[in-house]
Amino acid sequence: MENCIFCNIASGRTQARLIYQDEDIAAFKDLNPQAPTHILIIPVKHIASLSEAAEEDALLLGKIQLTAAKIAKELGIKDFRLVANNGKGAGQSVMHLHYHLMAGRRFLWPAG
Amino acid sequence: MENCIFCNIASGRTQARLIYQDEDIAAFKDLNPQAPTHILIIPVKHIASLSEAAEEDALLLGKIQLTAAKIAKELGIKDFRLVANNGKGAGQSVMHLHYHLMAGRRFLWPAG
Repeated sequence: MENCIFCNIASGRTQARLIYQDEDIAAFKDLNPQAPTHILIIPVKHIASLSEAAEEDALLLGKIQLTAAKIAKELGIKDFRLVANNGKGAGQSVMHLHYHLMAGRRFLWPAG
Repeated sequence: MENCIFCNIASGRTQARLIYQDEDIAAFKDLNPQAPTHILIIPVKHIASLSEAAEEDALLLGKIQLTAAKIAKELGIKDFRLVANNGKGAGQSVMHLHYHLMAGRRFLWPAG
């Protein structure tokens, strides 16, 4: 989607320092970090939200989970919180599915 | 794992009212709900945390994401937050991977 900021980052149309990239997944720092480590992990393919994901996206969604763990491991992080907001009412501000990988501080419960 | 409370729930050894169950995934209400809807979604297979997941678990992990969206849809929920805590330092209290599906109230940012 041409006017989707995350599609543009994932495709390289918008320059961004990517922390991770493969054919299906991209990861980059959140511009408004809420923890010492705060990384967004997204599918390259435009999926607006989890609610919009299809059965055929299962493997992709799973790879995103593994990528979160992989990035954490590479950064030497043992404890992290992974969060997906679904819908504006839950705090989703960009309508391209993204998982927040947050680490490096204490976390409160509940998660917001 | 015999002494894992979530393994026991998923296998039926511990009685619990399951909201969803298939061969690979189980879902049930959190005993300490932090939102009007607060459901835990777990793999039946014992995976301690995302950090312990293997490449071969990718499809399973993805199906958990889709199951979260499916449960939300069936409950008539549009907006929800999905959270996985990885490691005790991030608030993981049971060492069997679980995703918190929370909905039905306003959520703060950051997520804890």
